[in-house]
Amino acid sequence: MNVHLIIMAGGSGTRFWPKSTAKKPKQLLPFGSGKSLIKQTVERFDGVISNVWVVTTKLLMDSIQKELGPKVRVLAEPEARNTAPCVYWASRVIGEEDPDAILVFLPADHYIRNPNAFRVTVQEAIEWASENEDLVTLGVKPTRPETGYGYLHCGKPKSNHCIKVERFVEKPILENAKKFLSSGEYLWNGGMFIWKAEIILRAFDEAMPQMKKAWDDAQGNVEKAYPNMKATSIDFGVMEKVYNVVSFPLDCGWDDVGSWASLEDISEELNMSHDAGVVSQGECVSIDSTGNIVDSAGPVVSLLGVKDLIVVVKDGVVLVADKSRAQDIKQMVEAVKAKRPDLV
Amino acid sequence: MNVHLIIMAGGSGTRFWPKSTAKKPKQLLPFGSGKSLIKQTVERFDGVISNVWVVTTKLLMDSIQKELGPKVRVLAEPEARNTAPCVYWASRVIGEEDPDAILVFLPADHYIRNPNAFRVTVQEAIEWASENEDLVTLGVKPTRPETGYGYLHCGKPKSNHCIKVERFVEKPILENAKKFLSSGEYLWNGGMFIWKAEIILRAFDEAMPQMKKAWDDAQGNVEKAYPNMKATSIDFGVMEKVYNVVSFPLDCGWDDVGSWASLEDISEELNMSHDAGVVSQGECVSIDSTGNIVDSAGPVVSLLGVKDLIVVVKDGVVLVADKSRAQDIKQMVEAVKAKRPDLV
Repeated sequence: MNVHLIIMAGGSGTRFWPKSTAKKPKQLLPFGSGKSLIKQTVERFDGVISNVWVVTTKLLMDSIQKELGPKVRVLAEPEARNTAPCVYWASRVIGEEDPDAILVFLPADHYIRNPNAFRVTVQEAIEWASENEDLVTLGVKPTRPETGYGYLHCGKPKSNHCIKVERFVEKPILENAKKFLSSGEYLWNGGMFIWKAEIILRAFDEAMPQMKKAWDDAQGNVEKAYPNMKATSIDFGVMEKVYNVVSFPLDCGWDDVGSWASLEDISEELNMSHDAGVVSQGECVSIDSTGNIVDSAGPVVSLLGVKDLIVVVKDGVVLVADKSRAQDIKQMVEAVKAKRPDLV
Repeated sequence: MNVHLIIMAGGSGTRFWPKSTAKKPKQLLPFGSGKSLIKQTVERFDGVISNVWVVTTKLLMDSIQKELGPKVRVLAEPEARNTAPCVYWASRVIGEEDPDAILVFLPADHYIRNPNAFRVTVQEAIEWASENEDLVTLGVKPTRPETGYGYLHCGKPKSNHCIKVERFVEKPILENAKKFLSSGEYLWNGGMFIWKAEIILRAFDEAMPQMKKAWDDAQGNVEKAYPNMKATSIDFGVMEKVYNVVSFPLDCGWDDVGSWASLEDISEELNMSHDAGVVSQGECVSIDSTGNIVDSAGPVVSLLGVKDLIVVVKDGVVLVADKSRAQDIKQMVEAVKAKRPDLV
């Protein structure tokens, strides 16, 4: 039994614009510690998992190969079609090469505060997946009534740590998120999956038979197969429709680093300075300023009497946004793209 | 009778930092129209006054000579000692060369909306100064209860436009500024003076005899004389102490361009764009942002959900300040100077 780590790295790089761009999305950026998130994701399994794959876009293929080195195998998708085609493709390719393979699918761009706790849980999940015919999705123990994530509604324990997943829940309204948190029955859906290649392919055949058809019709030619593979998430396309889903709750200081505002939560671990709030990168001089998030690729940022701003400085572009608008940076990217496509 | 224009250009360049710096203060900056304020000051008298002098610091001497061309004579002060030594020096030098000279002293860094009205008033003042033994100070008709300027308290008219100045008033508190405005008896002290060389030198001998002594002891060597010349303003040192001061009220859309916030008042005349407020220079993309003042030497400034900010982008430094703190940029300059003297 071989374990394969497959990193899903197709992110488009709008939420951390202008630090992130289409050619250098979040997963390729260093936050604080100096290493890119994708490199941190791989290094978390150094010496534990030796087969490492990345599924990404053609645009990012070369920079990811360069970032991770030649031992990592990179699959470049013809186009971004959400996670279901990506998981199917990788599972077929690896399953044909290694029929007994256990596959660990992880996003490229998350932050894990406690990598040891993370590895222990992943190891337990790998063992479970190898001994059972279940699909494991790692769930994160919620720490706040977050409305930006999907949830897993858990049922009965199947072992000390393994729990049956009853239901996938879309991003809830705040009222429901609060109920989820207090009930203790819910986990955040972290988009991290562990299963046998054989089991996930069987689940695809059950929930999305068009995937096998598209692949077989194209005789494994990804360029031909992809346009006929449904662009949907693995959660929606498969996981919600099958009955053998279990979860292992993660308690490892997980953070999806979803926006500039989220840097505040991990700033201490990443040794960011706190001159006028959080300084992610670069030099900041501040007077009477608080709660700001600053990232500069070079120029000194000077703040006078301002609060709760996001200030990002890069070659050719400066973003100044109210922190409450961190989720709307996509809008700004669209607006800038219309005038200056070179900047996004 | 020859008229000489003397431009006082010793400004230290903190209020428009980082666009302005010690080496390139406000008077050398273009605002909107593309020409520096000092060049605009000189060009207002093109074909009217041919003898043009500038008194400035050694640091700025070369860049001013370059900006204004070889016909302009530049006097470089050994050190900045406020306006009294500057006026005395220029008056002695020009008076010795041209004993009948009429001197027009103007600051380098003001904005005049209506240059024709300005020239007409200056011409009237020149005629008055040539025919009388008065010291003329141009006063600006107040348009608001400004607490940032000194005022001239005017007495009886001496002609259609000429008014006796009874008293110089320091920057008032708001309550007094309101009274001044409604009384109609006060003008803003604009720091613009017109007089015969002979008359101002006589006034110096009366009010500040140490100036003549310092100059004569040094036999006209400015390096030796300056340290012994009292560092004070011409208003405080001379004008407030003599009895032959008159004013000609100016109604020409005068603005001292005193801070980033003041650009709002002249932005239309200077054809500044109004994307997210006032864009003094550079490209700005904005979403849900109002009342900001933006100046960028290159990078595109993108504003998302912010208001009433000053955002200035230059090579190596970015300033983000609340507009209400425009007067405190000096503090920021000091703070940055301590860390990065190259940036101020």
